[in-house]
Amino acid sequence: MNLAGLRLALLAPIAWATPPSGYGPWEQIAYNIAEGMHRRGLNVTLFATGNSRTSGKLSSVVPVGLNEDPALNVDLYIALHIAALFERAHDFDLIHNNYDWKPLTYALATAKPPLLTTVHGFSSPPILGAYYRGAARSFYCSISDADRDPGLSYLGTAYNGIDPNEFTFVDTAGDYLVFLGRWHPEKGAHLAIEIAKRAGIRLKMAAIPQDTRYFSEMIAPHIDGDQIQNLGPVQRVARDELLRGALALVHMTTRPERFGLTLVEAMACGTPVLGARMGSIPEIVVDGVTGFLCESVDEAVARVPQLTALARRACRERVEKHFTVERMVERYCGYYMEALRLGTPPAPTAAQLAARAHDWWDRPQAFTDIPPKPRSQCY
Amino acid sequence: MNLAGLRLALLAPIAWATPPSGYGPWEQIAYNIAEGMHRRGLNVTLFATGNSRTSGKLSSVVPVGLNEDPALNVDLYIALHIAALFERAHDFDLIHNNYDWKPLTYALATAKPPLLTTVHGFSSPPILGAYYRGAARSFYCSISDADRDPGLSYLGTAYNGIDPNEFTFVDTAGDYLVFLGRWHPEKGAHLAIEIAKRAGIRLKMAAIPQDTRYFSEMIAPHIDGDQIQNLGPVQRVARDELLRGALALVHMTTRPERFGLTLVEAMACGTPVLGARMGSIPEIVVDGVTGFLCESVDEAVARVPQLTALARRACRERVEKHFTVERMVERYCGYYMEALRLGTPPAPTAAQLAARAHDWWDRPQAFTDIPPKPRSQCY
Repeated sequence: MNLAGLRLALLAPIAWATPPSGYGPWEQIAYNIAEGMHRRGLNVTLFATGNSRTSGKLSSVVPVGLNEDPALNVDLYIALHIAALFERAHDFDLIHNNYDWKPLTYALATAKPPLLTTVHGFSSPPILGAYYRGAARSFYCSISDADRDPGLSYLGTAYNGIDPNEFTFVDTAGDYLVFLGRWHPEKGAHLAIEIAKRAGIRLKMAAIPQDTRYFSEMIAPHIDGDQIQNLGPVQRVARDELLRGALALVHMTTRPERFGLTLVEAMACGTPVLGARMGSIPEIVVDGVTGFLCESVDEAVARVPQLTALARRACRERVEKHFTVERMVERYCGYYMEALRLGTPPAPTAAQLAARAHDWWDRPQAFTDIPPKPRSQCY
Repeated sequence: MNLAGLRLALLAPIAWATPPSGYGPWEQIAYNIAEGMHRRGLNVTLFATGNSRTSGKLSSVVPVGLNEDPALNVDLYIALHIAALFERAHDFDLIHNNYDWKPLTYALATAKPPLLTTVHGFSSPPILGAYYRGAARSFYCSISDADRDPGLSYLGTAYNGIDPNEFTFVDTAGDYLVFLGRWHPEKGAHLAIEIAKRAGIRLKMAAIPQDTRYFSEMIAPHIDGDQIQNLGPVQRVARDELLRGALALVHMTTRPERFGLTLVEAMACGTPVLGARMGSIPEIVVDGVTGFLCESVDEAVARVPQLTALARRACRERVEKHFTVERMVERYCGYYMEALRLGTPPAPTAAQLAARAHDWWDRPQAFTDIPPKPRSQCY
């Protein structure tokens, strides 16, 4: 089946512009998919904020990202944004939803066209109810094998892909650790600080605000502008510079990571990863080759002196082989064809229905075979 | 056209059960419409909370009202509740939406059946955007002639209707004023206190929490348990007792009232209304007959001694003539027939399009010809 000319509606989130100028991994991936599909000849309409860019067509309701203008009515614009697509559902051959669960509730009112939803992460247990309900209408795919719910069927995994050319490869190891992300306990910035202090190495942190209490209690007291530095949020150029100059990216999450775009961005610069051995990280980082997978802070501290022995070239090569836009788009094309062939998603199996009956928090193994960090290590 | 057998989907809000046990005017009206239409032989499916009652069929997703269980995920259940109806849109001949603007965004994905939305009030300017957008899909009706937006077309007004038999008529004037509603500055509880104090009469207040700062700063300091009494939220039986025993209901709103269900409930008990001369109140209260319409607190204070001269029987009779469930249902049947006849709503006129371009706050006359209270009298 040839996908050239396929009328594809691609729904992006509207927290930020697509692509984002700084933080915004979902928007970045939506952009990458739109560009990749356009290059393959699909007729792409991107539904995103008005300040977004695309080589295809842009359809927008909200002028800028909801996080970019606090005056915008969030509830209203989310609804109008999603409705703008489903109102025109019959204009498309396929809808690819990259905007979480709410579009599923809109899709239930339309029978066509086939709908594929990328599950970019389950933010909280209750939204599983919408994914279960939406399973009658939407195909699903995951962004790592680890980040799956046992109550759902998936066409497969499409790892997030980046353009390696946007990241500068450097072959020389740096002399500091880097933390990149959000100020939220699940991202483990407090563990990165502990590791840097105990290993006697500098840590540069760049993150967007989220959990203000966590930041003021667990992070701010440690910032001295010397060993522990807070650079604030960084944009594209500064991020590249920060990543390529580092000895390693520290990514000691306290709950299973869904994918972890920064891991791939760091590796594209040649910078290895010191990461938690859970969630998606073991799928992205090859232990002892492109970083170290750690069970504990103790282990991470012990690994710091060994980081210089890793070949930075191997990190770059792993990205070029597995985590490029082209590789991602190739996978999605396969799932598009499968969705078009099947038309409607498969009915849930008995095992999936049984899994849905279990409470989410009662299934610590749901995302990974590796037990989550003990609560004592979490915030 | 005979509506018997018509398959009607009636969408109720889910903040409370339908009908509510205490506060919950939108749910109460949704219940009254469902019962009235069922009595007229329509095939009614009520979409409401699981703890709702109806003589027709009940369809529910959320077990109890969102305000009745704080553990419920509001965003999720609102979406699933609305989607449960539109997913089955083809099962119905007509949809009657009593749940504000969000269902309009869902309806855009379906062409049929005709949809009628009762505008129960514009809670904030931004949601007008959804009403304008939804005007291509939904007919509108208002709950008072005053509560209309000049950018929209309306089939007409259907005044909210109650069952007068649920309220006990008493022919003897009481010796206290009563305030009923929410602790929010727009409901004017602080003005009711000022009026009672200056007129030297007791005030009994029963309200549900909303604006906690308003309550603690403007209301709580005046409560002495004697002249100014706070009874907390009241349920059905206590509300009837409170209303029928009063000299008058004070309803000095600081922004135009949309309808004011408590006005009608008080009048059903024979209790007249001391109300602001703006919004819907002049349509409900006949000045000098079923209460007094006041331009200011001064005027309201001066009217208190004159309240005993009003005939309580006239209050009851006005409700029985204009504000019963049967009267409301009769009006809605007319609008249902009109919606079925037309199929799709009319295109907006040039004047309506021009009105939409104006900022909401720049139009103080939008709801009424009477200027709103000066800001100094507002909170």
